[in-house]
Amino acid sequence: MNAPAWNLRDRQRRERLSRAAEALGGRLQGRHVDTDAAVCLLEAVLQPGDRVCLEGNNQKQADFLAQALTQVDPQHVHDLHMVQSVLALPEHLDVFDSGIAKRLDFSFSGPQGGRLARLVSSGGIEIGAIHTYLELFARYFVDLTPKVALVAAHAADAQGNLYTGPNTEDTPAIVEATAFSGGIVIAQINEIVPGSTSLPRIDIPADWVDFVVQAPKPNLIEPLFTRDPAQISEIQVLMAMMAIKGIYAEYGVQRLNHGIGFDTAAIELLLPTYAESLGLKGKICKHWALNPHPALIPAIEAGWVESIHSFGSELGMEDYIRARSDVFFTGADGSLRSNRAFCQAAGHYACDLFIGSTLQIDLHGNSSTATLGRITGFGGAPNMGADARGRRHASPAWLKAGAEARAGRSGASGTPRGQKLVVQMVETFREHMQPAFVERLDAWTLQQQAGMDLPPIMIYGDDVTHILTEEGIANLLLCRSDEEREQAIRGVAGYTAVGLARDTRVVEDLRDRGVIRRPADLGINPREATRNLLAARSMRDLVRASHNLYSPPRRFRNW
Amino acid sequence: MNAPAWNLRDRQRRERLSRAAEALGGRLQGRHVDTDAAVCLLEAVLQPGDRVCLEGNNQKQADFLAQALTQVDPQHVHDLHMVQSVLALPEHLDVFDSGIAKRLDFSFSGPQGGRLARLVSSGGIEIGAIHTYLELFARYFVDLTPKVALVAAHAADAQGNLYTGPNTEDTPAIVEATAFSGGIVIAQINEIVPGSTSLPRIDIPADWVDFVVQAPKPNLIEPLFTRDPAQISEIQVLMAMMAIKGIYAEYGVQRLNHGIGFDTAAIELLLPTYAESLGLKGKICKHWALNPHPALIPAIEAGWVESIHSFGSELGMEDYIRARSDVFFTGADGSLRSNRAFCQAAGHYACDLFIGSTLQIDLHGNSSTATLGRITGFGGAPNMGADARGRRHASPAWLKAGAEARAGRSGASGTPRGQKLVVQMVETFREHMQPAFVERLDAWTLQQQAGMDLPPIMIYGDDVTHILTEEGIANLLLCRSDEEREQAIRGVAGYTAVGLARDTRVVEDLRDRGVIRRPADLGINPREATRNLLAARSMRDLVRASHNLYSPPRRFRNW
Repeated sequence: MNAPAWNLRDRQRRERLSRAAEALGGRLQGRHVDTDAAVCLLEAVLQPGDRVCLEGNNQKQADFLAQALTQVDPQHVHDLHMVQSVLALPEHLDVFDSGIAKRLDFSFSGPQGGRLARLVSSGGIEIGAIHTYLELFARYFVDLTPKVALVAAHAADAQGNLYTGPNTEDTPAIVEATAFSGGIVIAQINEIVPGSTSLPRIDIPADWVDFVVQAPKPNLIEPLFTRDPAQISEIQVLMAMMAIKGIYAEYGVQRLNHGIGFDTAAIELLLPTYAESLGLKGKICKHWALNPHPALIPAIEAGWVESIHSFGSELGMEDYIRARSDVFFTGADGSLRSNRAFCQAAGHYACDLFIGSTLQIDLHGNSSTATLGRITGFGGAPNMGADARGRRHASPAWLKAGAEARAGRSGASGTPRGQKLVVQMVETFREHMQPAFVERLDAWTLQQQAGMDLPPIMIYGDDVTHILTEEGIANLLLCRSDEEREQAIRGVAGYTAVGLARDTRVVEDLRDRGVIRRPADLGINPREATRNLLAARSMRDLVRASHNLYSPPRRFRNW
Repeated sequence: MNAPAWNLRDRQRRERLSRAAEALGGRLQGRHVDTDAAVCLLEAVLQPGDRVCLEGNNQKQADFLAQALTQVDPQHVHDLHMVQSVLALPEHLDVFDSGIAKRLDFSFSGPQGGRLARLVSSGGIEIGAIHTYLELFARYFVDLTPKVALVAAHAADAQGNLYTGPNTEDTPAIVEATAFSGGIVIAQINEIVPGSTSLPRIDIPADWVDFVVQAPKPNLIEPLFTRDPAQISEIQVLMAMMAIKGIYAEYGVQRLNHGIGFDTAAIELLLPTYAESLGLKGKICKHWALNPHPALIPAIEAGWVESIHSFGSELGMEDYIRARSDVFFTGADGSLRSNRAFCQAAGHYACDLFIGSTLQIDLHGNSSTATLGRITGFGGAPNMGADARGRRHASPAWLKAGAEARAGRSGASGTPRGQKLVVQMVETFREHMQPAFVERLDAWTLQQQAGMDLPPIMIYGDDVTHILTEEGIANLLLCRSDEEREQAIRGVAGYTAVGLARDTRVVEDLRDRGVIRRPADLGINPREATRNLLAARSMRDLVRASHNLYSPPRRFRNW
């Protein structure tokens, strides 16, 4: 029998490990590799065509290993297939320029989106697909399993147990998929805890890790979720009031996720003021799937928040989290334990509402942050902004949304079922007077340019339940035809070309039926929408609200 | 400031731990608790009203801790809120009889479904909700976080590190939610590895575990996924041929999940024979989210299968898995590492097809395994049998299904998008000549009886793409109205009342359009559908195919 042919993976793993041992010699002690031997380690371990996960989260970066990877000899290591959630660093694309890597499957490219688009059009990179985070993690266990994982942790002990600190993020998902499929796991760390002392806690057992390298400086972490309240406009305050009174209160939303941005920061800052004045405390916003947003501090302090589970952490929130451990998921050491995979599952299945912003919305309600010349991806939005059709537990918010969607319907689509609230919150014009409402998404042109199978739509109109602008709320659940839906969208699109082309009579009918609601319909006086309603109006206010436990990164301080 | 009020969870945790230390005295060494002190430990740690996760998977059971829980004094420990995925053991309900527990959130109750229904109608239990597995895990991180987790592992070392062996199942999700929210984790184990020896691998770090108790006998594991090929009928062979030729080949399904049952076992056993004869090797069924089904052995041996990631394991498959480690996710020790949370994510987001059976299907295509007098839940089916609307990566199967669903549509529902293939495979009559097709699901009556918010529907008609019976395949993606859909369903419902009430003319039209396809339309001669096509026709054949590596549990052996 050809029995050995069934354990190739294990044999190759041993070969890689012994190549590394030979190449490193005395620079390998147990699992620990000397800092200056990182490139040597990668050259010993990697083979052409390997599938490699280089940990790039939207916050924590395995930046030292990213640099090391750019320095391997492309004669020996080339045509790698990178499978990583975020492209954040120039090095993440440098490896494609040099031929070290060739193919890419990812979720989000943020600041590298423009360069990525140029690489694609010059043929310097093959894109497999753009995913939402949980979808990419899922494929790690099916058809995109990494052969080598390069991850980042805060510290390791002598055996190689890893402590990630608050930014655990993607690490458990990446390491589990790699370690249990005969792959090789290499971790960069900031610190080694000496001999007999133990780590504050163990996030990844040494058992799952092959090599540990101390980086010359701490890994990069981006404070992606910090928004200075000073930059919140009165229009955003008005929109936040509408969200709270017209959606959160209306549906009794207890469990939710907020996207990144000033719009949702405004909502967070209105909870202990405006929402409190409406008597909503204890009735909305108790459980969150959310990073530790500094803007949520006043609401937490006012006793609004029962629990927060986080994808990652946020720089400067460490002491605050430790001091408010009843609210956050923390380890025995008091620091946050985040986990993007579980938090994405929580956002998908255990939340009643997702609210976020976008750059463009079309007449069907399809929305996208993809714009010409940039391939950015969508991170977690598609997962959290999709109706979770596998969900079977009920809540008042979910039942009400489902009932609205199905009222008057028959057949399969009339069968009673709940629905997730998915809200797109946008000002009708964004920066540089670009309209947020368009007849045609840039996504269609991008699809052609990049040869994609489908246009890169972030959230499909089929899944959006409400569109909220400064002009009002369009409840798409109540629309009974494509035409009504289009007019409902036009009816909140303000002075954009899309808004101006509305059929005024139909829009007024929709308003009579409550499909469109203006601030006045909600009993909101736009003149009361002032910045005075914000529970914190500056970074300093946030620090004060936190009892000096929150320590913002330098770039957010002007004192 | 009232700072202490923010760390109540941590304080209560310390109090529970010191109560345990005091009550146990010398029966506690490090994290290890004497076997006969289990009840004492639970009484010391638990408080009335606690949310408790008692690990009940669909395979592995924390049976010793379940027994211990039934023995605590209901005067001291009562009104617990149980949050566990499966109710498998009588003890899981005994705790409700005695008042120790009061409220239940769960996913599946299988054999306890009848007793559970009686408990509900007598008021002896409050049901929070029925969930699909991943949904329940998601709520562990939001609003159903366990205060105490009682889990099962195979072995522990002196420090309390846990080795789960192949049935890791729910354990990582349960322990992570509990350990990082100030909860208490108690593990029952089969073995303690002595002093300086180390575990075969570490599945859960000791850091996350508070107490370890050796059980007097190994924990129960149910071989739930084993099907004896001898019991596969020729009708099932015919249906399996239709699935392969009419669906798998048609869409080029590479990544998939199979439900439990003889219908899907037949498909697995036809891959190296019938499917091979159609030239489909390498074109379908390469990547699986699946437990290690013994029925898949012949296909694996014939080189059909590239990878399998598993929710749990299957008794008797240990040596086979070890010897075929290229195919399975295994640890350095060679045994399977399963993980229900990740495998459910894989089934949801990385698979193109889910195929399973049901007990009842209505005229809208809604299906349910819920029948009168039983509250059973659905396990993973709702998650895997739902269109994954957050998915953004394309595959030919997904694109084709999406294009069929959207052909000729406009508006939001006409925007191009892929769709998951969700196939219900049923014989028109099940045991005791009960029709599988009904005008009205029992779920509606059950909803009234148990006061549920919605009828317990397993898979909604909106998400089903194909219904496959011995009469043919109905492709619901191609139906353009509720009426067409109803006739397509009637058109494959055979001699059931639902089938007999078909409009023959419409059904023939649907057949002309390829919405309904009979075996003859697929070029399948029902007379060729014999058991001879099965790659294994008995348990013995499976053992032989495995080169004697598969060792079926005694109840499946007649030799």
